[in-house]
Amino acid sequence: MNDLVQPKRKRLLSGMQPTGTGALHLGNLAGALSKWIKLQDEYEMFCFIADWHSLTTLYNDTEQLANASRQVAADYIAAGLDPDKCSIFLQSKVKEHAELHLLLSMITPIGWLERVPTFKEKREFLLEKGDGDESLSYGLLGYPVLQSADILIYRANAVPVGKDQAPHLEISREIARRFNRHYGNVFPEPQALIGEDTGVVPGIDGRKMSKSYGNAIYISDSPETVAEKIKNSFTTPAKIRKTDPGEPENCTVCLLRRLCDPDGYTTSWEEDRLGERGCMQNKKELTEIMNEMLEPMRKRRVELLSDPVELDRILEKGADRAREAAGETMKIVREVMHIG
Amino acid sequence: MNDLVQPKRKRLLSGMQPTGTGALHLGNLAGALSKWIKLQDEYEMFCFIADWHSLTTLYNDTEQLANASRQVAADYIAAGLDPDKCSIFLQSKVKEHAELHLLLSMITPIGWLERVPTFKEKREFLLEKGDGDESLSYGLLGYPVLQSADILIYRANAVPVGKDQAPHLEISREIARRFNRHYGNVFPEPQALIGEDTGVVPGIDGRKMSKSYGNAIYISDSPETVAEKIKNSFTTPAKIRKTDPGEPENCTVCLLRRLCDPDGYTTSWEEDRLGERGCMQNKKELTEIMNEMLEPMRKRRVELLSDPVELDRILEKGADRAREAAGETMKIVREVMHIG
Repeated sequence: MNDLVQPKRKRLLSGMQPTGTGALHLGNLAGALSKWIKLQDEYEMFCFIADWHSLTTLYNDTEQLANASRQVAADYIAAGLDPDKCSIFLQSKVKEHAELHLLLSMITPIGWLERVPTFKEKREFLLEKGDGDESLSYGLLGYPVLQSADILIYRANAVPVGKDQAPHLEISREIARRFNRHYGNVFPEPQALIGEDTGVVPGIDGRKMSKSYGNAIYISDSPETVAEKIKNSFTTPAKIRKTDPGEPENCTVCLLRRLCDPDGYTTSWEEDRLGERGCMQNKKELTEIMNEMLEPMRKRRVELLSDPVELDRILEKGADRAREAAGETMKIVREVMHIG
Repeated sequence: MNDLVQPKRKRLLSGMQPTGTGALHLGNLAGALSKWIKLQDEYEMFCFIADWHSLTTLYNDTEQLANASRQVAADYIAAGLDPDKCSIFLQSKVKEHAELHLLLSMITPIGWLERVPTFKEKREFLLEKGDGDESLSYGLLGYPVLQSADILIYRANAVPVGKDQAPHLEISREIARRFNRHYGNVFPEPQALIGEDTGVVPGIDGRKMSKSYGNAIYISDSPETVAEKIKNSFTTPAKIRKTDPGEPENCTVCLLRRLCDPDGYTTSWEEDRLGERGCMQNKKELTEIMNEMLEPMRKRRVELLSDPVELDRILEKGADRAREAAGETMKIVREVMHIG
């Protein structure tokens, strides 16, 4: 079967789940957002807030969901995603994701889903917790089907992912291939776009920065909170006095300095290593640098969140563009499947 | 939590899958359609053609799907469902079914679905056929979730089902209860409406009339085809000559006579039993009676199918009404779940 007409510009799909309060942290910024921002000129970009996805694990705790979704949207824009360049929207506002999800569910073998490592891990975790069967939902098993619908509905060519997440895309490619084999070449196989490796962003306790560890610095944190968190941050354990030699590669404060000050951090690292500067100085300087970096983002997000009408307008515009693109795809999908 | 406002009139949901060519037979007419027709004055009725459902088993054979769906719609109306009284529509035209399906998938435990007998049977059947894993789709496992969405999206109070199908509704009630427990009393628990037992309608080979057995008489059959099928029908095996005693309860022709002539069949049955009439006479009379019964339906369905614009208008009107009702429900659902 011949290829059907594909969109003119290369397309990219990216998104995050709104969990908890929805606020994004420096790990999200470095690991994902900053990469997306660089890509928004190159691709026709669809950037969504995966509120439906968050129900796979948070279905019984949705009080914060609507608010968290808006927080994520504000963080996207505050960090530099430009709503004039890319479509920023809530997944739940584009019903076509649900329609394609249903259709893809019909061609996705259960076995493919049961073998997904994250599903197996979640199942084991829930069973150990004693929640067992009742907490293991059909939707949790179908997570990769919904993810595939999210990507394929835009006939996206690429999805920016971290190195460790690249395998997650394989099932979406398999589903695309299976659909194309049955009904014709509708979907490009989405490629994983693995950006420059920025390394793991450490949280203030030295472990990977993560909302669930409670060790994150948020884009929304006030200057005082940032100062307080940096003050309490983990540094080189053996460096007690200023003159003790540090190991910047194992010091949260040094690693965050490199992240926030990529062009100027080297001198501070050398001085740290040689025992020529203390952790206090490192913390003081990092606080200044980080607050300077975050200040315009903070301002922008406060502006956005204090003007709900404007934020709604931006999200509605993004959803309109997404619906248009998704609608074009669904028209083709229904046609090749002879539906309706 | 208090009950949310429910629709004013009691609501009923009914539907059938368009399989094969989509044509409905006398078994469908007696077992389902004729009952629905009696209920359309009593309830606010939503009567759909389950085209998405048919993908659970026919995803790789959809060439006929759009056409089959129209055939079912024409049969519905030809048999007596009045599009002014009830909403007749294609499932795939009301995207809210897919949206609610996705949301319900998040609260439906996998274990509930794996224990559904029809799923277990289909799994065994496919595994025996050697198709195994690849043919057992995620959507097949989720069939009851989609069925529940179909019902709950209209907050239907009742679903007309055959006696043997009543257990299929239990899982929809369980899903409704689970949703209500988590988010508030949105959904009434749909009740099975088991009508008068019309008995099994036999096909021309004596087995239950079924499309898959190739033994069915269709609403769309021409008078000649009906005559031919009745001529070849199974009668009392031991009745060779007219004077041999018949067993009308075991004779397809007699049973179909009772179905088509409920007020006048008794004399013919007595004569058959006493060897006072032969199978030829039974067949001749049944052919006349059945053709007389089917003639107005045939005419109406030919009219409908020869005027696609009018049929589309009817289905679009039905879908509009369905979308309105479904949209009201989804507004409540999104609100109680804090989505969007």
